[in-house]
Amino acid sequence: MQEKNNKLNKLNNEIYLDNAATTKVDKIVADEVYKTMTDFFGNPSSRYSKGIEAYNIISGAKKSVSKILNCNHENILFTSGGTESNNLAILGSLNLRVKNKNIITSTVEHPSVSENIKKLESLGFEINYVAPNKYGEIDPNDILKKINNNTVLVSVMHVNNETGNIYNIKEISKAIRHKNKNIIFHCDGVQAFGKLEVDLEDLDVDLYTFSGHKIHAPKGVGGLYFKKNIKLRPLIIGGHQENNLRAGTENVPGIAGLKKACDLLNINKNLEYINNLYKLLVTEISKLNNIHINSIGNISPFVFNFSILGQKSEVILNKLQEKNIFISNGSACSKGSKSKALAGMGILDKYIDSSIRVSLSKYNTTQDILEFINNIKLI
Amino acid sequence: MQEKNNKLNKLNNEIYLDNAATTKVDKIVADEVYKTMTDFFGNPSSRYSKGIEAYNIISGAKKSVSKILNCNHENILFTSGGTESNNLAILGSLNLRVKNKNIITSTVEHPSVSENIKKLESLGFEINYVAPNKYGEIDPNDILKKINNNTVLVSVMHVNNETGNIYNIKEISKAIRHKNKNIIFHCDGVQAFGKLEVDLEDLDVDLYTFSGHKIHAPKGVGGLYFKKNIKLRPLIIGGHQENNLRAGTENVPGIAGLKKACDLLNINKNLEYINNLYKLLVTEISKLNNIHINSIGNISPFVFNFSILGQKSEVILNKLQEKNIFISNGSACSKGSKSKALAGMGILDKYIDSSIRVSLSKYNTTQDILEFINNIKLI
Repeated sequence: MQEKNNKLNKLNNEIYLDNAATTKVDKIVADEVYKTMTDFFGNPSSRYSKGIEAYNIISGAKKSVSKILNCNHENILFTSGGTESNNLAILGSLNLRVKNKNIITSTVEHPSVSENIKKLESLGFEINYVAPNKYGEIDPNDILKKINNNTVLVSVMHVNNETGNIYNIKEISKAIRHKNKNIIFHCDGVQAFGKLEVDLEDLDVDLYTFSGHKIHAPKGVGGLYFKKNIKLRPLIIGGHQENNLRAGTENVPGIAGLKKACDLLNINKNLEYINNLYKLLVTEISKLNNIHINSIGNISPFVFNFSILGQKSEVILNKLQEKNIFISNGSACSKGSKSKALAGMGILDKYIDSSIRVSLSKYNTTQDILEFINNIKLI
Repeated sequence: MQEKNNKLNKLNNEIYLDNAATTKVDKIVADEVYKTMTDFFGNPSSRYSKGIEAYNIISGAKKSVSKILNCNHENILFTSGGTESNNLAILGSLNLRVKNKNIITSTVEHPSVSENIKKLESLGFEINYVAPNKYGEIDPNDILKKINNNTVLVSVMHVNNETGNIYNIKEISKAIRHKNKNIIFHCDGVQAFGKLEVDLEDLDVDLYTFSGHKIHAPKGVGGLYFKKNIKLRPLIIGGHQENNLRAGTENVPGIAGLKKACDLLNINKNLEYINNLYKLLVTEISKLNNIHINSIGNISPFVFNFSILGQKSEVILNKLQEKNIFISNGSACSKGSKSKALAGMGILDKYIDSSIRVSLSKYNTTQDILEFINNIKLI
């Protein structure tokens, strides 16, 4: 059924396999965005019915998001996207004036986390990095070893955007809490949100970042879960919006789209569909010669990273795009630079230089995978 | 023609007169946003054709904006809206570590400017405020008198969001340049952009803020013009987007909508249309008893502010909303608090407490104005 619908919806015969970079907006979501722009266009801060109507769209969206994440809707705030949320989480949760404090993070974070950590280092924070082990895991014990009395923040992503590795956030959280209850634990959940089952109550993180455009909602909207006791300072100030945590007229159409995308989700059913595509992909790629698989360990089936030895990533990408097949060799936010995640995992340069990432969505079909494999064989 | 079209497009017989708070998205703009979400959904940072296609939408939008503002398209960057742009302009253009520096601003700025100025005051900056004179003008000489050797920034808005006063940015700019060429001059142009003719080359400002949702583009997109020599530090970091000045996947659909809204503009023709509505409004309101007009001086016809003596603003707003007429008593971003602009102009409390703001757009008709006046008479 899903396969059949996808064939009907296919655009210009293109095969889009870069869904970790961004996704096509669902037509039902786009309809919702459209309706919000033209009919429910009031300013959510206006006190008359037309404003309240817009405000209620935002409140409703928080409820939809909180269902996906199993958290209280009052602990959700909306931003312009995952990057802004990561900036807010890291810069907004710490007292930047207190010196000699320690932060622990992984070597494989998205630039919107790692660049902020570097900024804090320049402000006098001490940073300890933890790399994934040879099984692709971030070992909670490795984090424990780095925690000291000055540790104020740990930031570890949920699913790696380049390799698909799922990190054991629950065990990391447990370890941190056991050692020191005052440490703030931030998790960048952009590649997990709406794709895997995420239970924030169970994970027990303090801050959790999510984004709309990775799950068929529009670009320009994302958000942050924040635990009740976390004292956040806003990054953007002015109006009282989002309980004084994020000023500026809210992106109501984008938020309405994100709500609709959440309401449409059937995570388990979709996961089953993606899993089947993923198995086909891994099985067929593994049969080929001169292949090195970079996605090892506990992997989200939405992302698969491998290297074709002796071939430069850019050359493969170009050859594929001539056939209307779109993949990438890493994070779109790191355009042009060497894959940080792969280097951070200790993968050799020769593999990194020839690595490619295939990332799936509900719009992909068995046929997409087979055509992709055929074209890889030709290379 | 415009009147006729508007009657056909009318939604639920509502009369929306709060266009300074936000506007209805134009259907042609909404179509463009829709198409971008579903067809041109690539990540602008992706290096294949589908990404480049999205990147080109952003570049094209900069050209459209730069035509409206008469500036170089390379000096435009996009943000999530006017508030973020004001935050970036003020916090990103100054060296926050240098002490004892002086800033000059008006008493009537939008909270996204004034709150950042207060933040800088708490960081050790000295702030000098200039109030509009009895003619509603911000006198360049008043600014000149406050400039000293430590002055690093002047921030004055172009059009007041509560009263519609157009401030003489060109004369203010000339005065500042004459005194000290190193002072950064920021202008919040949110209520002028796309409504009045704005020529940035002529105005000679260093930073100019604009927003989409005040001109029938979607919420969630705005931008900042920055002069070539201004060294901006990004507010949001991570990816390399917007030449490292604003990280995060760009809101491509919103930007495409803003481009379309700019391309549709016929500023002079629209101004003529709005001027006629405005004249009718002012003439009819002026005939009534117990009226005090707060919009005095050089006023943008998009905004009209007056007081009905002896009536509380909230009561008037509520009575009107029962008739599906939507107006406000000031900035939506200052929900619930006393009008800052009116207080900043030295207007008496009794007038402020009974003030209302009517703000127009191309979707309003003569009939709207007449119905509004009739309802005011009933009050």
